[in-house]
Amino acid sequence: MHVIIRIEMEKEKANIGKIATLINQYEADLVAIDVKKENPKQTVRDISIKVSDESVQMNVINALKETEGVRVKHISDRTFLIHLGGKLDIQPKLDLKNREQLSHVYTPEVARVCRAIDEQPELAHNLTIKNNTIAIVSDGTAVLGLGELRPEAAMPVIEGKAMLHKRFANVNAYPICLDTKDPKEIINTIKAISPGFGAIHLEDIASPQCFEIEETLEKELDIPVYHDDQHGTAIVVLAGLLNALKITKKNLEEVKIVVCGVGAAGIAITKMLLAAGAKNIVGVDKEGTITSEKQYDNASWQWYATHTNSENIDGSLSKAVEGADIFIGVADGDILKVEDIKSMANDVILFALANPNPEISPDLAQEHVRVMATGRSDYPNQVNNLLCFPGIFRGALDAKATSINDEMKVAAAKAIAATIHEDELSEDYIIPGVFNEKVVEQVRNAVYQAAIDSGVSRKI
Amino acid sequence: MHVIIRIEMEKEKANIGKIATLINQYEADLVAIDVKKENPKQTVRDISIKVSDESVQMNVINALKETEGVRVKHISDRTFLIHLGGKLDIQPKLDLKNREQLSHVYTPEVARVCRAIDEQPELAHNLTIKNNTIAIVSDGTAVLGLGELRPEAAMPVIEGKAMLHKRFANVNAYPICLDTKDPKEIINTIKAISPGFGAIHLEDIASPQCFEIEETLEKELDIPVYHDDQHGTAIVVLAGLLNALKITKKNLEEVKIVVCGVGAAGIAITKMLLAAGAKNIVGVDKEGTITSEKQYDNASWQWYATHTNSENIDGSLSKAVEGADIFIGVADGDILKVEDIKSMANDVILFALANPNPEISPDLAQEHVRVMATGRSDYPNQVNNLLCFPGIFRGALDAKATSINDEMKVAAAKAIAATIHEDELSEDYIIPGVFNEKVVEQVRNAVYQAAIDSGVSRKI
Repeated sequence: MHVIIRIEMEKEKANIGKIATLINQYEADLVAIDVKKENPKQTVRDISIKVSDESVQMNVINALKETEGVRVKHISDRTFLIHLGGKLDIQPKLDLKNREQLSHVYTPEVARVCRAIDEQPELAHNLTIKNNTIAIVSDGTAVLGLGELRPEAAMPVIEGKAMLHKRFANVNAYPICLDTKDPKEIINTIKAISPGFGAIHLEDIASPQCFEIEETLEKELDIPVYHDDQHGTAIVVLAGLLNALKITKKNLEEVKIVVCGVGAAGIAITKMLLAAGAKNIVGVDKEGTITSEKQYDNASWQWYATHTNSENIDGSLSKAVEGADIFIGVADGDILKVEDIKSMANDVILFALANPNPEISPDLAQEHVRVMATGRSDYPNQVNNLLCFPGIFRGALDAKATSINDEMKVAAAKAIAATIHEDELSEDYIIPGVFNEKVVEQVRNAVYQAAIDSGVSRKI
Repeated sequence: MHVIIRIEMEKEKANIGKIATLINQYEADLVAIDVKKENPKQTVRDISIKVSDESVQMNVINALKETEGVRVKHISDRTFLIHLGGKLDIQPKLDLKNREQLSHVYTPEVARVCRAIDEQPELAHNLTIKNNTIAIVSDGTAVLGLGELRPEAAMPVIEGKAMLHKRFANVNAYPICLDTKDPKEIINTIKAISPGFGAIHLEDIASPQCFEIEETLEKELDIPVYHDDQHGTAIVVLAGLLNALKITKKNLEEVKIVVCGVGAAGIAITKMLLAAGAKNIVGVDKEGTITSEKQYDNASWQWYATHTNSENIDGSLSKAVEGADIFIGVADGDILKVEDIKSMANDVILFALANPNPEISPDLAQEHVRVMATGRSDYPNQVNNLLCFPGIFRGALDAKATSINDEMKVAAAKAIAATIHEDELSEDYIIPGVFNEKVVEQVRNAVYQAAIDSGVSRKI
């Protein structure tokens, strides 16, 4: 493991000899010392060391911090080194070696292409990067599990997501983090920059503003607008449920499903399940079940109340899950008890997706459920959005779709489920792995066809 | 020359045999026919042909258009083929082969990078693409010589400019064309998307709104904002003038300069010349000279009147150029007469930059001037912004500059001038060619140093 530590030394109090001795004491290898800044009193140096593991690294750093006259300014470990300079390059598709080549991609010949698009704007889908480029846009209000961050601080995640788009589906994705949290400004900004993009991937935007932003943009733009935190999770959950239901031999139309946590993800999952045919869904949040017998200020809860819980179950999570076939948690860690599971139907399907701590630990739940999925990579059946977003955008772009509609989302879920053959299916294999090579292609094909069948494709 | 023509045929009225015969008649080679769409009544086909020159191509296309039952839907020649799918790719800097690599660029490890930036926002200049990425932004109001176009139609030009940034200076430049022409909305949009960019390159925005947009953004953002149509031209003009003055053995401080055309470029050139030491500049527009004895509604003309024409010369272009050493035209074709040049001083320096027709044809002017430059590549001394923008952004990004100030612009002009050695200098070689390999590096170095010397660099 290679680490670079930038230190500032007071020359009167510390020197490089002392630092080298200290590094040796902790069994780290000193690789190089680079001067970054020098003046008569102080010096700034980058100390490159090799360590066997993270604990050695931390020992060295702590010892340096405690050394008089030394201030640790910055530490670059492998992750930081990978991020140096950012993670994306913008590359011309052809080289420019001479005037003749220049004249085709730029003035004067390019003018003919501009005029053609000005006369027939749809040509932009063929003759500009709109053809294969999406924007991934975040306002930094709900970044990973970190909550609200500065827009600059959201960039590493959004850049990472752009890498995944290219790696898995050859989609050019450009990361844009916005210096505003106001939904109206976010909407106006995305509309203003939209002409060069074939689709908009919204990412890590907090609820409830994510609903208004997505709905307004979807209505006002003629390209797909898709909020991954909502639909990506929902699609993969539906995929997993379809396979779990094959194992338990139950029908989606007949099962009772409890959705725990009625935020952006919970509402999107519910809509997805309804679109796929589910009839009996009960939502529970901190205040208990959502029921049409109550009034809610939150418009999305009001919607939820009128579209779910037809039996008007009123009460706590424990009450809600009684007799249920399926539990889907997108709430907080450790809120479901073993007793709760025992009150459910036979062959319980349990999706405990809170991260890093699921609604109930798999170790506790295991013996009381038939099929279990989590958001974690260290248990079987990881619900990971990466299974969905590359293929769904690939399909939408290839179809030159004007939106990503429910038909395309359900098609994506069915395609993900179908990557696992009936005879491969088992309790701990209902969701394919993220490196399964069939996933993107099959999702792409299903989404492409659904776009054409549902009439949102621009293809002739 | 290879051309693809997409045609729609009514099966009752036309057939492929007829088309093939027609193509042979015009001495074009039929290369391939691809079916794009087929139904009982109509068929859409892509006809690939090889032709010896553009006239054969046009004859075939016209003949097809006149054939009954045939409709020409689309024509792809080499330029169009190069543009298919757009001209840029967004590439990850490293491949993702397994979970471990995924964990560094994305969740969970990426969270540490996000937190570090959130605590210390300046780290975004090192740990995100802000490090080496700029936005090229246009509203499509002044695209090449084409005037106002739809934003989609400006994309081919802006993508081309992005290619040039990468090809010449390894700058990652992302093209953004805005679906708004309102200066306030343009300003708000660029501010909102700025966190991920190290600089903003404004392009093809009409005057006068370009001034307000650039000035406001330069004030309110802590990254450089640079309108190439203004400063790029101004810097290359100054570079050329510095070399022309060496040939005529005159001093910039002493010469009389007439700037013809007081729009965005003319004003920027004037400011650049003043920053470099010029004292005697007279501006002329359609209404005649700009003088402090008149009042102007246009704020930039008001500024111009108080900073130039200290002798208050009042009159036409012909009057303005009397006794002048230098004429710089950024106006319209063929507005300067041979008689006007004859009224100027000895050793006239004439920059006739209107495109495609210069203010006076070089063939007419040649025998009456000492040094002449144009905006055209088919005469000596082409003033081409490509000599400036890659190097100036390379230097600004490397210096992590907060702006591109006058010191950096003058430094860029001097560096361009200096790429031509004193003993290489001649009347028809005062400006280097765009493929001169010294240009970018020397501009970069000069701009980098000027950023540090003028205190706008973030480097420690």
